[in-house]
Amino acid sequence: MALESTPNHTQSVAGWAAHDSSGKIVPYIFKRRENGVNDVSIKVMYCGICHTDLHFAKNDWGITMYPVVPGHEITGVITKVGSNVTKFKIGDRVGVGCLAASCLECEFCQNSQENYCDQIQFTYNGIFWDGSVTYGGYSDMVVADHRYVVHVPDNLPMDAAAPLLCAGVTVFTPMKDCQLVESPGKKVGVVGLGGLGHVSVKMAKAFGHHVTVISTSPSKENEAKQRLGADSFILSTNDEQMQRGKRTLDVILDTVSAQHSLGPILELLKVNGTLALVGAPDKPIELPSFPLIFGKRSVKGSMTGSMKETQEMMDVCGKHNITCDVELIEPDQINQAFDRLARNDVRYRFVIDIAGNSKL
Amino acid sequence: MALESTPNHTQSVAGWAAHDSSGKIVPYIFKRRENGVNDVSIKVMYCGICHTDLHFAKNDWGITMYPVVPGHEITGVITKVGSNVTKFKIGDRVGVGCLAASCLECEFCQNSQENYCDQIQFTYNGIFWDGSVTYGGYSDMVVADHRYVVHVPDNLPMDAAAPLLCAGVTVFTPMKDCQLVESPGKKVGVVGLGGLGHVSVKMAKAFGHHVTVISTSPSKENEAKQRLGADSFILSTNDEQMQRGKRTLDVILDTVSAQHSLGPILELLKVNGTLALVGAPDKPIELPSFPLIFGKRSVKGSMTGSMKETQEMMDVCGKHNITCDVELIEPDQINQAFDRLARNDVRYRFVIDIAGNSKL
Repeated sequence: MALESTPNHTQSVAGWAAHDSSGKIVPYIFKRRENGVNDVSIKVMYCGICHTDLHFAKNDWGITMYPVVPGHEITGVITKVGSNVTKFKIGDRVGVGCLAASCLECEFCQNSQENYCDQIQFTYNGIFWDGSVTYGGYSDMVVADHRYVVHVPDNLPMDAAAPLLCAGVTVFTPMKDCQLVESPGKKVGVVGLGGLGHVSVKMAKAFGHHVTVISTSPSKENEAKQRLGADSFILSTNDEQMQRGKRTLDVILDTVSAQHSLGPILELLKVNGTLALVGAPDKPIELPSFPLIFGKRSVKGSMTGSMKETQEMMDVCGKHNITCDVELIEPDQINQAFDRLARNDVRYRFVIDIAGNSKL
Repeated sequence: MALESTPNHTQSVAGWAAHDSSGKIVPYIFKRRENGVNDVSIKVMYCGICHTDLHFAKNDWGITMYPVVPGHEITGVITKVGSNVTKFKIGDRVGVGCLAASCLECEFCQNSQENYCDQIQFTYNGIFWDGSVTYGGYSDMVVADHRYVVHVPDNLPMDAAAPLLCAGVTVFTPMKDCQLVESPGKKVGVVGLGGLGHVSVKMAKAFGHHVTVISTSPSKENEAKQRLGADSFILSTNDEQMQRGKRTLDVILDTVSAQHSLGPILELLKVNGTLALVGAPDKPIELPSFPLIFGKRSVKGSMTGSMKETQEMMDVCGKHNITCDVELIEPDQINQAFDRLARNDVRYRFVIDIAGNSKL
């Protein structure tokens, strides 16, 4: 609480916060800093609900600083621009993702990999340069350093674009690292069909790949193929289908954050194939060594993306008209949405209509 | 037993075999095929004892076909050459590793990656093209298809070179894949200081890298530095040392086959670093997602190497004079050696003096 009195934190902002590990979200008035020379102020239009928000609201990782104002899938319109800012002007449609600050000096910051800076601070539950705790996008407005803000292409609707700021870039970056963005014709697997999975399918299809969805749920087959345009489906509980799928995929994006063994999934990869781990299971994953060894396969992690990659992803999504399938909710429905999200009952991302535009 | 009567399996050979899951090795006379047009016959001089031999002798993986004659780290001298063989002549010093046969036709066989052919057969406990069970190097002589035989450079002693055929190529291949063979100056970590670990240290030093050995055993520090020339040592049970080592290594070769979590080890890797898994733990490894994700790190497997890579490794070892540190034993000491190996009590590889040269 003391941190709220950080000098120059003078702007009162209406938002929504969790105050304890019940995770219950209630209205919350707090202070934000004045718009600094490197800052832009953004009227928040929409904010996606990422599973991470739920983890922080409930303190699942033991690192939550209450009250926590979640939200790192923010789209909105610029209302103020600091004197050092040349890239943005008032009225610009912009997005803010996971990153709020980094050291700007290390090799990662210098080489557009600031998402790996070891002094990185996140959009909420971080400590900003001025010592204040960061508050996220479940709020009417945000003040963001312009270096952590991206443009949203004109053709993308602001609500369906919001989840791109985290879910989108999280799957885009490993796709780019696996040369999937520029080289079509690969066989791509997507494990799990939630927020990350559905946008993985859309991107992989847009980039010209043959896409196989792998899921434990038979009902996802129609969804994957009819609604999202996947080419193929493997029911991971069906041994015959798993057997037939062995050594068929170049790259797998594993978006599942529930406990699961990587063994059977790795077998689906060709020799030299890569499994990109983009879900973040709380507990250690089971990694049997044999499918890794006998197939010269790799398991690779990656942490959202850099700001450069985020802008590139946004531009690519603009070019291919890729957005997320969202369920729009009012701020007073956040708790219900959290409950449904905990049961994976959402197609495929909740987005909060912060500015109330859907009521107009 | 019926398989011993495969047509043309007419040559009686003296060897050593396990007959049941006690894993006890006893003398055993069996038949080998006549030397075919693509074959070479090899008088076995030395055979290394790989941990895999122990697993097969005891049927740890449930796939042993008894009686099993282990041994896939074979050095010897050619005594017969088939009419199609041009690469070898009588008297040549040669080595045989893990591979006995592959389909010769698939993309892997056609592209010098036959170690990933899905019809691959191993030097022992495999099924050869003629339907016979393969018997390994714990025997006076072997008959091998010339495509799975390599030359041993003249300057390498045959006993200390034997373990290169499996241990050597198993660590060489991921080093090559991580560009460590041609590009010096990297920071390389080696986890575990056994058969694979000690030769990893020797190779990494010879290739011009800064080498850190990571071990649970404080006594390995002197050994690593004094005997093997490692530059640095991290005691993995010491939190302060592990903390200091964070984000310092480009590549880690993890040679440990005992159960262990990859989490703390992954933290030692720089961003974008690779952990090459070369030990083969029986049980699934614990892979926490966060160190993988927050460091964009990879865990990569690989299965020995191709014949091309095996010859390249041999030549590189000849050039740098790299051999293994071995404890030479007589064939009647194999059971004792197995017992000691099970306790990791060997520095660093047992080699059986099959031809009795050490008694001369």
